Amino acid sequence: MRTSASDFLVLAVVGSLLLAGVAFSQTAAVPGGDNSALTADLIRLRDAALADDYAYRQLAHLTDNIGARPEGSPQAQAAVEYVADELRKLGLEVRLEECKVPHWLRGVETAELAQFPGQAPGTVQGLVVTALGGNAPTPPEGITAEVVVVNNFDELKNLGREKVAGKIVLFNVIFDKEKAAAGLAGEAYGGAVVYRGQGGKAAAELGAVASLVRSVGGADFRLPHTGWSMPAGIPQGAVSSEDAGLIARLAAQGAVRMRLTLTSQNGPEVTSYNVVGDLKGSENPAQIVIVSGHLDSWDLGTGAIDDGVGVAVAMETAHLAQQLHLHPKRTIRVVAWMDEEDGGTGHEAYAKTHRAEFSDHVAAIESDLGAAHPFGFEARLKPEALPLLKPVQDVLASLGSNVVHLTSRSPGADIQALAEAGVPTFGIMQDARTYFNYHHSAADTLDKVDPRQLQENAAAMAVLAYELAEMSQPLPR
Amino acid sequence: MRTSASDFLVLAVVGSLLLAGVAFSQTAAVPGGDNSALTADLIRLRDAALADDYAYRQLAHLTDNIGARPEGSPQAQAAVEYVADELRKLGLEVRLEECKVPHWLRGVETAELAQFPGQAPGTVQGLVVTALGGNAPTPPEGITAEVVVVNNFDELKNLGREKVAGKIVLFNVIFDKEKAAAGLAGEAYGGAVVYRGQGGKAAAELGAVASLVRSVGGADFRLPHTGWSMPAGIPQGAVSSEDAGLIARLAAQGAVRMRLTLTSQNGPEVTSYNVVGDLKGSENPAQIVIVSGHLDSWDLGTGAIDDGVGVAVAMETAHLAQQLHLHPKRTIRVVAWMDEEDGGTGHEAYAKTHRAEFSDHVAAIESDLGAAHPFGFEARLKPEALPLLKPVQDVLASLGSNVVHLTSRSPGADIQALAEAGVPTFGIMQDARTYFNYHHSAADTLDKVDPRQLQENAAAMAVLAYELAEMSQPLPR
Repeated sequence: MRTSASDFLVLAVVGSLLLAGVAFSQTAAVPGGDNSALTADLIRLRDAALADDYAYRQLAHLTDNIGARPEGSPQAQAAVEYVADELRKLGLEVRLEECKVPHWLRGVETAELAQFPGQAPGTVQGLVVTALGGNAPTPPEGITAEVVVVNNFDELKNLGREKVAGKIVLFNVIFDKEKAAAGLAGEAYGGAVVYRGQGGKAAAELGAVASLVRSVGGADFRLPHTGWSMPAGIPQGAVSSEDAGLIARLAAQGAVRMRLTLTSQNGPEVTSYNVVGDLKGSENPAQIVIVSGHLDSWDLGTGAIDDGVGVAVAMETAHLAQQLHLHPKRTIRVVAWMDEEDGGTGHEAYAKTHRAEFSDHVAAIESDLGAAHPFGFEARLKPEALPLLKPVQDVLASLGSNVVHLTSRSPGADIQALAEAGVPTFGIMQDARTYFNYHHSAADTLDKVDPRQLQENAAAMAVLAYELAEMSQPLPR
Repeated sequence: MRTSASDFLVLAVVGSLLLAGVAFSQTAAVPGGDNSALTADLIRLRDAALADDYAYRQLAHLTDNIGARPEGSPQAQAAVEYVADELRKLGLEVRLEECKVPHWLRGVETAELAQFPGQAPGTVQGLVVTALGGNAPTPPEGITAEVVVVNNFDELKNLGREKVAGKIVLFNVIFDKEKAAAGLAGEAYGGAVVYRGQGGKAAAELGAVASLVRSVGGADFRLPHTGWSMPAGIPQGAVSSEDAGLIARLAAQGAVRMRLTLTSQNGPEVTSYNVVGDLKGSENPAQIVIVSGHLDSWDLGTGAIDDGVGVAVAMETAHLAQQLHLHPKRTIRVVAWMDEEDGGTGHEAYAKTHRAEFSDHVAAIESDLGAAHPFGFEARLKPEALPLLKPVQDVLASLGSNVVHLTSRSPGADIQALAEAGVPTFGIMQDARTYFNYHHSAADTLDKVDPRQLQENAAAMAVLAYELAEMSQPLPR
């Protein structure tokens, strides 16, 4: 999950819901009609998902055998080919749909405090830093400048150009761990990540030579978290929370100078692809239900929770349908989106190519908040659509995955254009209490995914997708 | 805490005690005599410790303003001078007692899987690795070799020279997180760290070209943990637990080759120092009670929990005595040990210099298991000494720090020679449930220390030291 500025509110809502959500599990009365055949299929799907290891094996291949999949990398290309092949093996009609992606390459990343109060002769304080994606590099020998520590945009503004120009700005904004642990992970993230996204621009406007953010995450293991930031013509990075605290404490004692080296490169655009695989509908093949996750990842870890799991559960939906010989009326379209994390060029290309068919897109689901236990779904729907989802909720109730929470914003970054076009859109609503501790860090690896919880996610996506593809009429829009 | 092989059993005992220890808080009947004046002073010490920030300020200076203090480094020398100056400010008689320490310098540390099953063209899997202290380097360009994964010494032995020679051995021994969380941290550590200590030697004997251990720690944040290992003439390192898991999974699928670069240097011996500061006894100045921690640390973090806190609480004992105008009969000797982590040359030098005076060392305390809540003490004592500690236990009962657990081994690495000479020795017994998650890693930083818990530790050390220095007769030995 990239989480640009426009996603903050969504995240806050998802977070809040984890506390309030149970109330939503009591849906309106069942709509008229006999759903018993549908329900029987949904139960079969749920139970098959809970017994299957297909999604986990896909995830293991994507993370262990391919690894980090930053857009434009050979790994991203290998992942495209792998997913396409696997979907073909399932009998899907597979297309690679082109998009042009940025190609940013991480370089040397080092930082140290070269001067600070109480410093002993011949000593420095080593720091842990990582570059934020897509930004300008420092010179190879680094830059050395005084550090200005601020706690918010107002403090930066109040310092003004005179005190900021020529300096390295550190936004020491603390990720609220207690909030996240209490189920308000989205709110905790949203409160801090705005500085990762917009801080560099604000600092550059006042003449700063580089901008650093306190890593946006709740763990205390000296872990730097990368991510997207608005390019601002200056180097931008993230220090670990420990280093941010250290710098702030020392800067409160006197002048602190940092030597910072971030030698990344912005290469030329690369041709890449969304992988699009259709399980053709038996009655209305032109009508489409998208199941999706994004295939690209940041480069520090192996992109397990963000978002190998989303792709894996989308693939699992097709796998289960094949395994159970289910032939829903409408087409189930598996999409492995490219470049969610940086340019968003994958979903832009999809919207451009398919906009004329959006009226036939009856729904779109994306999973991009990890693979911990799913409470249910965040959904951008007309309220009158809600009762039609009762079969899904009934079947997922035994997993505690039957919440459907209505939202006014897109429940997924890659399905935003669809949401805005009025297509009913869904995000799986996972327990995100620890998600941001690993997100965009080297620690986003396969071991963070619990196989049973991944199965629950697969069940949630498959059950929802199948009802959407099979129900007598599409959801109202 | 270095934890060489000889310490494993101690750790296991400490760990076990956290579950069983409460029983020990019911001590034998109070020995004859009126302890009310002593008890009043102990209460004053305890309460002053709980209200004072001296220890925390010392710790902050050692970690923030000086930083990592590996033996032989400018930071270690700065720390020696700082502690000596601070103890002089408290009115102590301070000496720097020389020791010759090894001087090992960390270099480049990188590793990647250059070949593995399912590998896509042009890709590698990056790994997180750190060198274990004191070992031979790789060539600057690194070494590339197949990896052999074993789960214990028997598996290595069964492979034999034929399958090990020319390979990189990975000891994939899992730190038992559940055990640690349940209070058996020492047992969890002891079960894994033997491979860090002895694995390289066993691998080298079968012709391995390098030896790696799964990091000994319970966190899952891609964190490598360094530490001591028996030099074996080959490069030795630790990969993060995630990387160990990755390598093991891939090696189960087929051949895995690693490129490993660890360019450390062993420099010439450096002259360094134990800092020894005496608060002279008012009646029996020749009789000595040692309060201590070790001043050196590993180089990845800033050595807060291992063991800046030990030095800080020892300094606090002297600070509180001065603040409260207490003049105990015997000398309280603050010792900031050098080189606990690598050669142990500091305590060896002390033993050599002071062995003739060991009969006048009436007790020695070391704190070297972090600064979380103290349950009380591990003690190497004659059982008949136990009732004499009742005043300490009574005063610390309100903190829940009144356990005294008898052990047959030295309760601290630096006071081992004293323990073996029959001197009553004590270690503070902290809650170590999370200690090994940070220990020897980059995440051992000031923020890991809770100021209130540090005060509890200071109270425990000061109260115990004061009674030992003031009681009518020394403890029996």
